[in-house]
Amino acid sequence: MSTNSKSPSQFGDQINMITFGESHGKAVGCVIDNVQPGVPISIEEIQKELDRRKPGQSKVVTSRKEADKVEILSGIFEGKTTGAPICMIVYNTGQRPQDYDYLIDVFRPGHADFTFFKKFGCRDHRGGGRSSGRETIARVASGSIAKQALAAQNIHFWAYVKQIGSIRGSKVNKDFVEQNPFRVADPDLVVPLEKLIASIRAEKNSIGGIVRLTITGLPVGLGDPVFEKIDANLTKGIMSIGAVKGVVFGDFLDYLPSIPKGSEVNDQMNAKGFCSNHMGGVLGGISNGQNIEIDILVKPTPSIAQKQKTINTNGDEVSIEIKGRHDPCICPRIVPVIENMAALVIWDSLLNLK
Amino acid sequence: MSTNSKSPSQFGDQINMITFGESHGKAVGCVIDNVQPGVPISIEEIQKELDRRKPGQSKVVTSRKEADKVEILSGIFEGKTTGAPICMIVYNTGQRPQDYDYLIDVFRPGHADFTFFKKFGCRDHRGGGRSSGRETIARVASGSIAKQALAAQNIHFWAYVKQIGSIRGSKVNKDFVEQNPFRVADPDLVVPLEKLIASIRAEKNSIGGIVRLTITGLPVGLGDPVFEKIDANLTKGIMSIGAVKGVVFGDFLDYLPSIPKGSEVNDQMNAKGFCSNHMGGVLGGISNGQNIEIDILVKPTPSIAQKQKTINTNGDEVSIEIKGRHDPCICPRIVPVIENMAALVIWDSLLNLK
Amino acid sequence: MSTNSKSPSQFGDQINMITFGESHGKAVGCVIDNVQPGVPISIEEIQKELDRRKPGQSKVVTSRKEADKVEILSGIFEGKTTGAPICMIVYNTGQRPQDYDYLIDVFRPGHADFTFFKKFGCRDHRGGGRSSGRETIARVASGSIAKQALAAQNIHFWAYVKQIGSIRGSKVNKDFVEQNPFRVADPDLVVPLEKLIASIRAEKNSIGGIVRLTITGLPVGLGDPVFEKIDANLTKGIMSIGAVKGVVFGDFLDYLPSIPKGSEVNDQMNAKGFCSNHMGGVLGGISNGQNIEIDILVKPTPSIAQKQKTINTNGDEVSIEIKGRHDPCICPRIVPVIENMAALVIWDSLLNLK
Amino acid sequence: MSTNSKSPSQFGDQINMITFGESHGKAVGCVIDNVQPGVPISIEEIQKELDRRKPGQSKVVTSRKEADKVEILSGIFEGKTTGAPICMIVYNTGQRPQDYDYLIDVFRPGHADFTFFKKFGCRDHRGGGRSSGRETIARVASGSIAKQALAAQNIHFWAYVKQIGSIRGSKVNKDFVEQNPFRVADPDLVVPLEKLIASIRAEKNSIGGIVRLTITGLPVGLGDPVFEKIDANLTKGIMSIGAVKGVVFGDFLDYLPSIPKGSEVNDQMNAKGFCSNHMGGVLGGISNGQNIEIDILVKPTPSIAQKQKTINTNGDEVSIEIKGRHDPCICPRIVPVIENMAALVIWDSLLNLK
Repeated sequence: MSTNSKSPSQFGDQINMITFGESHGKAVGCVIDNVQPGVPISIEEIQKELDRRKPGQSKVVTSRKEADKVEILSGIFEGKTTGAPICMIVYNTGQRPQDYDYLIDVFRPGHADFTFFKKFGCRDHRGGGRSSGRETIARVASGSIAKQALAAQNIHFWAYVKQIGSIRGSKVNKDFVEQNPFRVADPDLVVPLEKLIASIRAEKNSIGGIVRLTITGLPVGLGDPVFEKIDANLTKGIMSIGAVKGVVFGDFLDYLPSIPKGSEVNDQMNAKGFCSNHMGGVLGGISNGQNIEIDILVKPTPSIAQKQKTINTNGDEVSIEIKGRHDPCICPRIVPVIENMAALVIWDSLLNLK
Repeated sequence: MSTNSKSPSQFGDQINMITFGESHGKAVGCVIDNVQPGVPISIEEIQKELDRRKPGQSKVVTSRKEADKVEILSGIFEGKTTGAPICMIVYNTGQRPQDYDYLIDVFRPGHADFTFFKKFGCRDHRGGGRSSGRETIARVASGSIAKQALAAQNIHFWAYVKQIGSIRGSKVNKDFVEQNPFRVADPDLVVPLEKLIASIRAEKNSIGGIVRLTITGLPVGLGDPVFEKIDANLTKGIMSIGAVKGVVFGDFLDYLPSIPKGSEVNDQMNAKGFCSNHMGGVLGGISNGQNIEIDILVKPTPSIAQKQKTINTNGDEVSIEIKGRHDPCICPRIVPVIENMAALVIWDSLLNLK
Repeated sequence: MSTNSKSPSQFGDQINMITFGESHGKAVGCVIDNVQPGVPISIEEIQKELDRRKPGQSKVVTSRKEADKVEILSGIFEGKTTGAPICMIVYNTGQRPQDYDYLIDVFRPGHADFTFFKKFGCRDHRGGGRSSGRETIARVASGSIAKQALAAQNIHFWAYVKQIGSIRGSKVNKDFVEQNPFRVADPDLVVPLEKLIASIRAEKNSIGGIVRLTITGLPVGLGDPVFEKIDANLTKGIMSIGAVKGVVFGDFLDYLPSIPKGSEVNDQMNAKGFCSNHMGGVLGGISNGQNIEIDILVKPTPSIAQKQKTINTNGDEVSIEIKGRHDPCICPRIVPVIENMAALVIWDSLLNLK
Repeated sequence: MSTNSKSPSQFGDQINMITFGESHGKAVGCVIDNVQPGVPISIEEIQKELDRRKPGQSKVVTSRKEADKVEILSGIFEGKTTGAPICMIVYNTGQRPQDYDYLIDVFRPGHADFTFFKKFGCRDHRGGGRSSGRETIARVASGSIAKQALAAQNIHFWAYVKQIGSIRGSKVNKDFVEQNPFRVADPDLVVPLEKLIASIRAEKNSIGGIVRLTITGLPVGLGDPVFEKIDANLTKGIMSIGAVKGVVFGDFLDYLPSIPKGSEVNDQMNAKGFCSNHMGGVLGGISNGQNIEIDILVKPTPSIAQKQKTINTNGDEVSIEIKGRHDPCICPRIVPVIENMAALVIWDSLLNLK
């Protein structure tokens, strides 16, 4: 049993945000403490972010339908924060827990089922409990408040799908990202990706990818030397999103299979500022005023309908074919989660600057 | 000015470790609070780890000489922890601050000089101050205590240099790592790497690489769902080491330039346990009892003797050729830092399990 | 504006409890993170504690009526904690914000109106906002969970009103406390107190008192040397309750106007244990296995109907007669708040013992 | 064994101060992280505070001699803070551990011996280890830095001995406090106190008292509603000093044996500000711009030479006569500890205001 000080469902050093709610309980939500008073907040914007995340948006993601309507219980009055804790709730609807009954004693490969059971001695087989992707609703809702507070300071977050499987774009058309179901930035990828996803679906499989996150408008000075570097905190926040397996700053991933020389990636300066941004906007753990650029490796959805070998809670060998309405590739839906999670980290860090 | 709650020089949620000391001040050191009483600690082991980290070990690293002898002021009595805070100090000797005089108003490309100056309004030009690599002495000293406490529970940490530039090994001979100056695990790499480093030195350049970290002997259950996942905390710890630019769990880096399918990387199970370890020992943010496996991307040392463009504190364009005794590749010396930093994270996390 | 790390509405080092809600908003409530799984929790018990706290219980307290029914949104399943965050909500009903309209720009003497306005630049005149006594609902609800978890370990909390004004009891009949509206332990006090409260009401005044808290069943070892002493943490918790002005351990208050000698209050020991308990159950900041005994000084309710001098938000001198249904003495209603707040502190501290 | 998150030897939410060192080890000291850069610090002032605290100052306190000279290892450069962690050390000299040999297995009444042994399973009989009064050296040294930083903002701390036994002053002559060995503010008390202390010494006893602390120059707005009230944090800080048994704000202690009415203690306001300060400078947990006034109950020194009953580590009944050079009344020496501890709390809290 965990007795963390920084408790498992808590985020932030300056803001203090706790998420709550099981995927098949009454509601999911969050409370955010230590928010500055007087910040204008649009509930429509929060809802818009939740809608970007929610299932059933297109045929390339899961067909589950969930309303995911946000309600605000405290801390916002006449459209502004009051400085008191903000409580937001999304009631769970559209859950079909019986869909999960056949999983009651079987550990799904690639899921948290085994580790959760071994750690807590029990498990919520109805869709993952606290390990479910529904937990990210609270991140997106609170992150949207961070995003709005930061947008007022001209700090913006945008992410796109850079690669799925081995299909990788070369163009970056920012406006195109929200106009296609894959959230890619290169229009030429849509047709090949439609084929790829159809083929993945046909073989009852899933596939991973790479998401690129860009943060613009940051001042110089976010982060601290030693343990609280801004890249360390951003990486922790992003790695805490279920499907993420790797985080790489700047353009180091583009050099692979080689690793570059100092002369190639030292960002030199002239009177106008930096001449390049190989480092991804961070030097010595402190933001340097350039865009922050991060590549994020996303694993394939572990829920696949192919027959897989696994064991049950008794340790017996069994095989499993996971039913249900699962995403063949989680990348398009993880884009808003990454953006909003990064917004929480930056918001928290910015409160450290006076 | 930062007013972090988790202060910049503090590490840990259960243990509470603060590092102190400037690279050219009187001493560097650390205090560790909340250590269990009765843990046997060997000062020789601490010194051995510091010796692995220190400069001047071979011709492939910097030729600077520093004694780096550790002294213990409190918290250890008759070879065991007492439960009281442990204070360890390493006096600075062999510093030559005058070596840095020509840098007094110039920002070195790739270093924290620019960001530190902009954040704090002042800077310690004598080798980086708190942003210096000497700060890692305190991590290694305290990490060595963690390593010893964990070794008693049969948890071990070992890392090796997997790749430098584009030279990558295929064999993994663990015993070989401490027998060669590059800390590679593949004996066949030594000759080509000697040539590579000679050529890098000749062109007054530096080069990056990949370090592989393996943690063995972990129980199932380390880490928590949501924000305090064990992979998120390990990644933050490792990303907080100056030269690290990317962290990737499991074998996802080996699949590049492609990203795998679910059927390829879902670790299936049989009665004996997991059939593979593509995920790197973590499921849902909780350790699964397999080895934890992490690839770490290390940037080239920013200090290169080539002429580079930069600006000074007045914003004037200047050129710089960095003198001094710098590492052409920091990978061999970062190996013990990564191991000991990871030990601190695991030690802290393990105290959460009862 | 505050940027606390330990945020204003957050309690606990091991548990992590955030309260939310304004006295005249939609709801008040709390989220508790880091609770052990498998602890049986009775919702009826939580409600019972809330009923002890709520207004309108008798003619000696305020006549306001509030339902204060608790709802649980997450973290409890089939009567047991799951280890996931527990969210509890009490919807606000019976508020009459218009009762407070005449206070819109006037600072009530003895209240937080002035300091809150100066700190946050705004104020919720409708009954105090976050400074309202309604905030203690969340403490009682979460404290009741602590109380239940601790009762299972045979640790119990009980408090009574020891003194109001200058009327002080000499008998301690524990069973009598919940049988009289003053929550005194001495039956002989009821008649004189009825007269006192009638006279206080008649003169449109209020009056303070002393509450005695006893904690039984504690193990030796709670608390830590130096800053995290158990008496320091209990005192902070109790002092954070709005009306509390002083906290005194053991029987030191009974010696006043003198302060005792060492020979009088050193608790000597024999083979059966301690021979006395002048220290109130704590030595060197660590519980010694005896009962913890604390005297708590409670100020008179600041809301009195007498004409008082004050200023308004423009700084103009005005006079005020506070209307509404206020408690002539808050002591009877503060008893459950103190018990439950102490339960939260002890619960949090106990999670530190392995 | 404790696994606190806020570790036992750590203080602060914004600053992060860890103390270390055993009373009979090599050194005691502290590290302070998160200090603003550029604050002028006088080492002479730190030493002066340590000299006020140290033993052997006069015949009314212990005759032990300790040099208690402070050394600064990091974080201060050319008389100013650099923003990096400040490490301060006081080497232990003059300890005579053999003086404590007869205590090796006996629990001294009123001391932490019993609880420390039961909690940690071991004990440092040589003067209390971490529970020793020498631990306050680190509080005074770090508090002196806080005091200096706050003095620059015109915030000042001063305390005096208001009462010893039943001898209580009526005059408050601030200048007199440092001119008499009792640190009383009323010159008329000196002669009766000399007699009292002589008589206490003669009967091999000790005696407690009351210390009054005043903080001047505070802005309105320190502290937060709910759990982080400034009075709650000040009280925790002061209660964490070994000998303190009670803390009372404002003048509530002066009303005893009665508790006042609302009309007596509500601090009314006029255009010039507050008309009185019964509340001690705090309303709703937030400083109101008046002086903060606190009465602190100090227990008699537990070390007395009278024969007392106790047990040893085997549980056998034994009698004890405590030898050594102990303070008959700790009040005079606790005055600087209280001032400096309060300075730490206010400094930490003030960093929360922007």
